[in-house]
Amino acid sequence: MRNEIDVDEANGVESYLKHLGFETTLVRTGGGNYLIAVGAREIDIRAVGHLPGVIDVHRVSDTYKLVSRKWKVGHSEIKVADGISIGGSAFTIIAGPCAIESESQMDSILEHLASEGISLIRGGAFKPRTSPYSFQGLGLEGLQMLASLARKYQIKVVSEVISPSHVASLYDHIDVFQVGTRNMQNFQLLHELGKVDKPVLLKRGMSSTLEELLQSAEYIFSSGNERLILCERGIRTFERSYRNTLDLNAIPVLKDKSHLPVIVDPSHGIGIRRFVTPLALAAVMAGADGLLVEVHGAPELALSDGAQSLNFQESSALIRSVQQVHQLRLKLGKASVHDSTQETEASN
Amino acid sequence: MRNEIDVDEANGVESYLKHLGFETTLVRTGGGNYLIAVGAREIDIRAVGHLPGVIDVHRVSDTYKLVSRKWKVGHSEIKVADGISIGGSAFTIIAGPCAIESESQMDSILEHLASEGISLIRGGAFKPRTSPYSFQGLGLEGLQMLASLARKYQIKVVSEVISPSHVASLYDHIDVFQVGTRNMQNFQLLHELGKVDKPVLLKRGMSSTLEELLQSAEYIFSSGNERLILCERGIRTFERSYRNTLDLNAIPVLKDKSHLPVIVDPSHGIGIRRFVTPLALAAVMAGADGLLVEVHGAPELALSDGAQSLNFQESSALIRSVQQVHQLRLKLGKASVHDSTQETEASN
Amino acid sequence: MRNEIDVDEANGVESYLKHLGFETTLVRTGGGNYLIAVGAREIDIRAVGHLPGVIDVHRVSDTYKLVSRKWKVGHSEIKVADGISIGGSAFTIIAGPCAIESESQMDSILEHLASEGISLIRGGAFKPRTSPYSFQGLGLEGLQMLASLARKYQIKVVSEVISPSHVASLYDHIDVFQVGTRNMQNFQLLHELGKVDKPVLLKRGMSSTLEELLQSAEYIFSSGNERLILCERGIRTFERSYRNTLDLNAIPVLKDKSHLPVIVDPSHGIGIRRFVTPLALAAVMAGADGLLVEVHGAPELALSDGAQSLNFQESSALIRSVQQVHQLRLKLGKASVHDSTQETEASN
Amino acid sequence: MRNEIDVDEANGVESYLKHLGFETTLVRTGGGNYLIAVGAREIDIRAVGHLPGVIDVHRVSDTYKLVSRKWKVGHSEIKVADGISIGGSAFTIIAGPCAIESESQMDSILEHLASEGISLIRGGAFKPRTSPYSFQGLGLEGLQMLASLARKYQIKVVSEVISPSHVASLYDHIDVFQVGTRNMQNFQLLHELGKVDKPVLLKRGMSSTLEELLQSAEYIFSSGNERLILCERGIRTFERSYRNTLDLNAIPVLKDKSHLPVIVDPSHGIGIRRFVTPLALAAVMAGADGLLVEVHGAPELALSDGAQSLNFQESSALIRSVQQVHQLRLKLGKASVHDSTQETEASN
Repeated sequence: MRNEIDVDEANGVESYLKHLGFETTLVRTGGGNYLIAVGAREIDIRAVGHLPGVIDVHRVSDTYKLVSRKWKVGHSEIKVADGISIGGSAFTIIAGPCAIESESQMDSILEHLASEGISLIRGGAFKPRTSPYSFQGLGLEGLQMLASLARKYQIKVVSEVISPSHVASLYDHIDVFQVGTRNMQNFQLLHELGKVDKPVLLKRGMSSTLEELLQSAEYIFSSGNERLILCERGIRTFERSYRNTLDLNAIPVLKDKSHLPVIVDPSHGIGIRRFVTPLALAAVMAGADGLLVEVHGAPELALSDGAQSLNFQESSALIRSVQQVHQLRLKLGKASVHDSTQETEASN
Repeated sequence: MRNEIDVDEANGVESYLKHLGFETTLVRTGGGNYLIAVGAREIDIRAVGHLPGVIDVHRVSDTYKLVSRKWKVGHSEIKVADGISIGGSAFTIIAGPCAIESESQMDSILEHLASEGISLIRGGAFKPRTSPYSFQGLGLEGLQMLASLARKYQIKVVSEVISPSHVASLYDHIDVFQVGTRNMQNFQLLHELGKVDKPVLLKRGMSSTLEELLQSAEYIFSSGNERLILCERGIRTFERSYRNTLDLNAIPVLKDKSHLPVIVDPSHGIGIRRFVTPLALAAVMAGADGLLVEVHGAPELALSDGAQSLNFQESSALIRSVQQVHQLRLKLGKASVHDSTQETEASN
Repeated sequence: MRNEIDVDEANGVESYLKHLGFETTLVRTGGGNYLIAVGAREIDIRAVGHLPGVIDVHRVSDTYKLVSRKWKVGHSEIKVADGISIGGSAFTIIAGPCAIESESQMDSILEHLASEGISLIRGGAFKPRTSPYSFQGLGLEGLQMLASLARKYQIKVVSEVISPSHVASLYDHIDVFQVGTRNMQNFQLLHELGKVDKPVLLKRGMSSTLEELLQSAEYIFSSGNERLILCERGIRTFERSYRNTLDLNAIPVLKDKSHLPVIVDPSHGIGIRRFVTPLALAAVMAGADGLLVEVHGAPELALSDGAQSLNFQESSALIRSVQQVHQLRLKLGKASVHDSTQETEASN
Repeated sequence: MRNEIDVDEANGVESYLKHLGFETTLVRTGGGNYLIAVGAREIDIRAVGHLPGVIDVHRVSDTYKLVSRKWKVGHSEIKVADGISIGGSAFTIIAGPCAIESESQMDSILEHLASEGISLIRGGAFKPRTSPYSFQGLGLEGLQMLASLARKYQIKVVSEVISPSHVASLYDHIDVFQVGTRNMQNFQLLHELGKVDKPVLLKRGMSSTLEELLQSAEYIFSSGNERLILCERGIRTFERSYRNTLDLNAIPVLKDKSHLPVIVDPSHGIGIRRFVTPLALAAVMAGADGLLVEVHGAPELALSDGAQSLNFQESSALIRSVQQVHQLRLKLGKASVHDSTQETEASN
């Protein structure tokens, strides 16, 4: 719909579609206005296209609508801050510890990231732990500390929110809200994040299908926030040699189904430190837009997830390798049929 | 610890254990006071046993503590209301529609259940649906309506809560709070339900291990509420002939690992109406303490889950069969080694 | 087709159907003659029905044909020997050790089974073990020994065959050929067993769908042997508290999809001795036609699978309980809508 | 053991170890002689090391022994023919159709592969199909045809064997025996391939753990053939957007656990043609030694697996991209900590 659509126009289109038997939802986001009409009836889309306020009409057969590539054929680039975005031509690395532990820990990591040119740090203040007796994170205080430190380095903060009631109080200290794997279907939380004007990084549930992931993204989008990044982080399978099974099939397929950027978390994806790097580089080659990597100054002392965190030396090596692999991918994408998503754009 | 333990006594035991290197958590529930000490060190439990305020000391090697049978060897019977409990010698059936749809719908179901002697109704007011465009339930209003209708029939209400912030407002209209499969690891919600003085029915996550289920139960218990009921409702597997794969192995194993009652939801467990009854009866024979069954006056018209709901005639037949199967199980349990949990009680 | 159909008649029908664009397969079993025509074209089945040699024509939309209930609506009862069959009104228990270990072991088990009225013994001579360094079974010699012992007790032998080249040499010593979970898709073996005039017990692959199981059964049937018994024995899932996850959903669903009898192996299905009995009784109630149970004189000394074998006392108790549960199931089936397969017969 | 060990020496070591309570297996392969002793007892390995005939002694705590990197720290390079090997510094591509369909089909593919410098063709003559009514392959005749055509192009043949009794008759026409995913635990077949002096490509079962894969490799090795190549080809999960879920975690982990080369089949790994290339390149970056890729002159007309086969143009592009990605991987491996297997060699 038109950006400056007035209430009367919107109502007009809605009543027309309801009259035809569709269920309608009017969505207003920071990026535009959309009217979703769900129904089985065949209609002449030209008739709708001529109604006042309508810019364009698309048929989307997927269960998700606004996150589908069936209506938005290009890739969405999600802006985080001036000069920082995910899903464009640059490759994005988000690095940092599983949990915020102390000021000195975070300061040394920030310094390390800054020296490597990384502009996004991850760090959890509220940890959803399986057992109530495990370390639950430093909470709001920890996050405030990280936010003020990060400002010094001009690094942006990615951190997990675990409850709809926390969104408001964390807002000032987070640049990208992360939804963790256990909360991918916490629909109240998704709905709340739909009302926020900051990007959301949505992790795939450890046993969620891609379709369910996209439907969860649709919750946030249809609640008003279209600045979404999807994240593959390994799924639960029968295999017991690693913590999770990283599903790189998901990368080209998600980018084919949706216009949203897709990043990969190889740290959780395999859960074993010395195998994180090859998986990370494989993810780049599979077409990921970015990486979410656990880095810790002293992984052996980490309060959580130490077994899968890279130390500074390893992360420096990874960052340099990633850039080279990404360069090669771009080069191959131009020269060949490699970039499947390109191809799909044309044929869909 | 003693029921009327005073602060000084509690502090005394805590400092003693902290001094020995343990992490301690003092838990006060409606049922008693418990001090959890987590640590690797071997100690002489008799020394702790003699401290003022201590009644009994148990070593629990499980990751969950208060829900483990390693300290509470008998079965817990959870009282819902006068004359209604789950986990005792009687078998409990909770029946009703997936979603509250209308007053006439609920009234006819209540009447049906009352005529069959059923004292617990299920009915969702807040439906966590995969797609934002599906029917999301009637919300608080629907629940209020159900609660006031149910009172007429002296039937108690089991209904799902999907957000920690809803707990207070739903409190007056719900007799048993249900945590759905997608929220089993919504730890904020679990924590909030730990502060409530009503029973909680905790459904297994569709891809959660039994250990994770018990750790989630531990969250609620350690937050102060020990009136818990576990529910197996089918897991996600590779098999595509049914919606979920009901895991009846979970019944004897959960009852072996924990003192909490375990009920089964065969409706979600297979998801196909004409197969619900044989699975329900199998669940009784596997040792379940109760059933959660979807019943609808006109399943073909249901707004959600109609494909797996029994109609009134089918549910009447099921209820009668269940009673006979349960009688036989009790009889066999007395005559033979069948009741494995009995056996385990002695040997553990 | 007619039982005594001559070559000309068969050729006539085949050419007619090939002419219409169908792929045809003529199947001759001990039970009858069948002509399978696979193709997408709509035809008037009456025209085929009038061709000489044709008795009846059925449309079967499943990927499996001869094992489908879409053409054979009743239940198949598989005769093993005079007075012994599987899939009829009696419930069948097959019991015995995982592996044949010694003459004295087998003799004491046979005596025990005979005293309990059991007429089928299981016992492996060729064990498909994951590691080449594990006990591989006593081979042909062990089987010969079991066969001659069993004859004394008039008990029939169920034993696994692991290679197509073994079928001929084992023929004299086996009454029911078992196909193990790892060989469910060993199509050469299935084909070879199609040429045998003894029943075949086909175990579900530990990660096979029901559709794949039925297609494997179709291999045997279409190779000439229609005396088939299906067996659910637990599937591989993410759950780590038990060896496998017994899938009792499979029982009513397989009996709905196919006319073949379905039995359950609760020993592998959970893999923990003290939980075998409740699962076995649940399987009866879910509608199984029989059980395959591991029994050993001294489970703690067994060369394989001791952890899941019942001892004699436990197996005696189980046998008695099973009979009572089966009686109740028959009674409930008559009185109510419980027997879903009955219902399906009419409505399909 | 010494290569030219005599019977007396071998017997001497075996009796010594049996005397100490170990189960022993003497393995003679084309590559050497090995004595496996399985047992729980702690011994002084120096005492064994001094026995006549013994060269070296290793403790291997894995359930697999001869395929473990605990005794053979370097990488095994498997020679297929003069100038052709898998697992060395060169990257190997095996390409070709799912099934041999006709002489003209195979000739055009061979010509294509030759022009791209590919020296190994895949092509199935015996297809293990889920349904008995699907195309089962051209059998021996098809394979003979392929073998004689391939000779003209000096291309070696990789083809699947599905039955132990076929090994001898296929021997002359196959250069690398392939064991398919459904036969990974067909132990008779593995045993038979252990007696052959040609390499074996062992595909991971679609639901097999890495440990089971390595134990199956151990079957072949301990039967006498140490020329083994492992192949990851996608596993069965709950995800329904693709045929299988390619498990690239398996690459670095298998190369860490075993000295055998590991290749990847991205065609089955995702099962959708336009996503094969990104996954193939990801596999290279994850550390694979080679690829097994389905290529067909006209994928839309293929008798099986057309939906996942690349056409000639796509395969040419893939081959060129793979070489560049492999070059980059080698370069990164030298410059950084990327090559985790390198690192492990040192630290193990």
